[in-house]
This record gives sequence, C-alpha cells and structure tokens, in this order.
Amino acid sequence: MEAFRTLNPRFEEQGRAAFARQAIMASMGARLVGIAPGRVEIELDFREDLTQHHGYLHAGVVTTVCDSACGFAAFTLMPPDSGVLTVEYKVNFAAPAKGTKFLASGRVIRPGRTLTVCAGEVVAIDGHETKLVALMQATMIRMRETGTS
Amino acid sequence: MEAFRTLNPRFEEQGRAAFARQAIMASMGARLVGIAPGRVEIELDFREDLTQHHGYLHAGVVTTVCDSACGFAAFTLMPPDSGVLTVEYKVNFAAPAKGTKFLASGRVIRPGRTLTVCAGEVVAIDGHETKLVALMQATMIRMRETGTS
Amino acid sequence: MEAFRTLNPRFEEQGRAAFARQAIMASMGARLVGIAPGRVEIELDFREDLTQHHGYLHAGVVTTVCDSACGFAAFTLMPPDSGVLTVEYKVNFAAPAKGTKFLASGRVIRPGRTLTVCAGEVVAIDGHETKLVALMQATMIRMRETGTS
Amino acid sequence: MEAFRTLNPRFEEQGRAAFARQAIMASMGARLVGIAPGRVEIELDFREDLTQHHGYLHAGVVTTVCDSACGFAAFTLMPPDSGVLTVEYKVNFAAPAKGTKFLASGRVIRPGRTLTVCAGEVVAIDGHETKLVALMQATMIRMRETGTS
Repeated sequence: MEAFRTLNPRFEEQGRAAFARQAIMASMGARLVGIAPGRVEIELDFREDLTQHHGYLHAGVVTTVCDSACGFAAFTLMPPDSGVLTVEYKVNFAAPAKGTKFLASGRVIRPGRTLTVCAGEVVAIDGHETKLVALMQATMIRMRETGTS
Repeated sequence: MEAFRTLNPRFEEQGRAAFARQAIMASMGARLVGIAPGRVEIELDFREDLTQHHGYLHAGVVTTVCDSACGFAAFTLMPPDSGVLTVEYKVNFAAPAKGTKFLASGRVIRPGRTLTVCAGEVVAIDGHETKLVALMQATMIRMRETGTS
Repeated sequence: MEAFRTLNPRFEEQGRAAFARQAIMASMGARLVGIAPGRVEIELDFREDLTQHHGYLHAGVVTTVCDSACGFAAFTLMPPDSGVLTVEYKVNFAAPAKGTKFLASGRVIRPGRTLTVCAGEVVAIDGHETKLVALMQATMIRMRETGTS
Repeated sequence: MEAFRTLNPRFEEQGRAAFARQAIMASMGARLVGIAPGRVEIELDFREDLTQHHGYLHAGVVTTVCDSACGFAAFTLMPPDSGVLTVEYKVNFAAPAKGTKFLASGRVIRPGRTLTVCAGEVVAIDGHETKLVALMQATMIRMRETGTS
C-alpha cells in the first residue's frame, strides 16, 4: 500500500464541507467517520426504510455510501480548486447486507491529474462479527471548481 | 433484440408484490411503471434529499433504481419459486443526473438457470428533452424461494 | 441509437493505419472488417493456439478484439491529432467462445472531449448460427498525439 | 487478508495441468510462477507481437494473464471435480503496459460454492522498478467436471 501526499492543506475541512452538502448522506443517516490523505470512511446504520425485498440493505444503498467514500478519498489528493465526479464503478456483492451497522471504506489506488482509480469496500458489523458485503473498483474525475469555500 | 418467454404466468403480480416490499423504493418515491417479460421500467422524480454536493441526484441513487429495474427484469423470466439477488454490476455515468424526472430501464440480455445478464440505463427527462445519465451491465442470481405468495 | 458525426475527415485511413500498427491483431489473425463514425467491427477466426483449457477461445482473447473494436470506434469520432487509450472495461461472458469465427463490434455510446463511453459485443458464428459470447462496457480516453501520419 | 483452506489436496498438480492445457498461455509465453490456496501468479515477458499501436502490451493481453491468474486462484479452493469459467471481470488500467516483464497476481476475495469473487493485479517490472498496470475485479463460476485427471 502506497502512502500519498495531498496537494490540498485544507482537504479535511473542504471534504467535510462537501460531504455535508450531499443531502442523500443525511437522508440515509450516513456519517463521515474518517478522512485522511487517500482514505475516507463512512458509517451507516441499518434502517428499515433502506431495504430491498428480503429485508437487507438495498445493493444501491451499499453502493451509495461506498461511492461517496471513494469519491471523497479521491478528493483528498486533489488540488484545492477541485470538484469530483464519478466516471464509473463496478461493485461485486459478496454477501447480503445484513447487520446493524455498515462501514464503507474508500481508498485511492492511483491518483492522477484528471482521473483517479479507487478501491472501496463495505463491511457489515453485527455485534463482534464483521463481514465483507461489497467490493468496489471506481474511476473518479477531477473537475475544476471555482468559488467552493 | 431477442424476445423472451417467461416461465412464470404470475410474473407481473409477483414482480409488483416484490417491488412493493422494497422499502427503499417507497423511501425514494420510485414507481414501477412498466413490467413485461425481460423488461422493467422504474420512474423517479428529482428530489433535493437524494442529491450529491453539486445538487444532482447522487450516482448511488441512479444506481439504486437501475439495479432494481435490472433485478426485476431478470425476475420476470424466472420460474415461479424464485428470488433474485444482485451478484455484481458496473455503471458508467454519461452525464450528471440533472432533470425533473428519471426513467430507469432494465432488460435481460441473456437469461440463465442460475445467472442472468442484464443491461440497464437511466435517462433524465427535462421538459421535452431526454438525456442518457447512466449505463449498467449487471449479473443477477436466482435464489430458490419458498413461501412467497 | 444516435448518429454521430466525426471531427476527422481522415478517420478511416488513420484508423486502419493504427489498427495495422497493433501487432497483436496480426498475431491473432484479427481483421478490421468495418469502420464508420462511431462503429468498428473486427473479425477473428477460431485458432487452437488462442484457447483456454476447455478448448474455447480464452476470455482474454475475446476481450482483446472487443477492446480494439471499442477503442477504434471511439477514435473515429475524435479530432485528427488524437490517440486513444483504454481507461477501463467490464466484460460479461454470456456463453463459452465456441465457434469457427467471431465478430467483435464496438460502438460509441457517448463521445466526449476527453472520455468516451463505448459498448461492445462479441458473437460466435458457427455455420448459420450466431450466439452472443461477450458484452463489454468501456471507457476510452483521448490522448493528444503529434506526428501520427 | 483472510487465509483460505483448499478442499482439493491435489490443487497444485491439477492447477498446473489445467494451465498447461491453456494453449494461449504458451502462445504468449506466459508462465505459472506461483500457486497456493487462493493465490496464483503468472509471469509474462514483453514481446513485440503482443503490442498495441503505441508499442505497449495490448490491454487485452494484460487482461488475459490476469484473468488466468484469477481463474486458477479460484480453482485452488474448489473441490477436486471442478472446472472454472469466467463469469465477468472489470479492469482498470492504471498505466500503459510498458516494461520488460509483467507479473499478474490473482487472489480469492470470497470463495463460494458456485461463485467466487477474485481480485487481480498486473505490475510491470523494468529493472529495479515496479509499476501497477492493471487492477481486476472478477467473478468465477465452478463447473462440475468429470474425467479431469
């Protein structure tokens, strides 16, 4: 695992501010619990209103928090005037999203001037047990932004 | 485009019932607007509480409705005692999810006894304009289910 | 299906020249059989030396011709001074690559200044029968090139 | 990283035999250099006849060795009477495949009775330098086989 250096001394403050602007995160009750150069972690509690037809978290909900974790992980390594958009991702579901809490981790695999490759995973936490639920491979793109605080 | 024959005469009734059990669909305001052998369409209105930091629908929300469209499309071609789970998917985002309404379409590309390959897309609708937002390629798996009405 | 207009009047000549420089195409016996704005087709004969352990074409060989078809499809819509590289792709294998001949088709779904989204497929041809073998979704990137003839 | 136990005491012998039957591996000069429960490594030398139009290894060639590494990694954890086929994969290309030698590693992320999720990567080796070229996420399926030695 490589160590990365950020180009943005205010990456944490700006990352947290952008996360706070993602209305869907608040709607789902997702919390930004970790942010470091090239790594972001988001926590989500199980909630009935986020489930699919078997009562597990919907695959799309799992994807949503993992996508945000990867996107913000990419953001931490970008220059100060950057915005980030998802180009594409691929998710393998390793087990049904059954648990009381879920932790999505995103990390940068290869940062780039325009494109950043990220890897993400979501684990379900149930008491003392942790289980891999989803594995993501994603491409993020840097957009030049003006006027972001 | 191939035509497919379903093995389940009650595919529509059972598909609609399973959709109704996906709590996340109601939470997002998503509606099942089309169901036919090998094809399913889901509609979603733009809502502020589903957005990312630029005010577009979050990529994960777009993915959620597209995943359900593909999953139920696969379901329509399965035998009566079947449940469906997502094995994996890949999504390319062609444009930001900007619009007043979104239509997700899922269709079966190759049905199988165990695995079904699906293609999905999401378009944004804005007045008289329609724009491709996302393109999905997915694998669904059939689970044997007992006791589903 | 949208119709696309190319920005490069010499797209065919330059596309064929770049194809001719892909040594692996000649090594595999692959032939460029169709090139039009946003679409490219490549043909490949079955050969024992390209097989995996069951005697079918190796998935990677199927991918190789499909990737080239998608890459050159993207190239046809780019400005004259462009090179193309594969950012990523995803392939679903619908059936074993069994047949006497294979046809890979690549087409542009959404062209862009930097990134182009493509869809590809490979069919196996066996006498009068045609069968879908693989389905690709890919992202190509434009590189500025100088001195390409 | 989890440790895995194989169900097949003859996994190495059978894995090496199946690799030897993949004619494309010999055609490309690829060598099986490591095989352990849940992990396989394949080495490939740079060769002009495997290149794309810029003189790098073709993305499809990189994919071919990585797919075999992942497929055989899955195979090592399967019961004795198993064959393995690729269901799908996704590859991100992190850098052009430039180097004198390439090492593809496949490892199992989640083994399953039917489906196995694998992760693969390919690095380019150039003198004392190593560089990530490609990252794969793949699904393999177990086929029941009879009469494999």
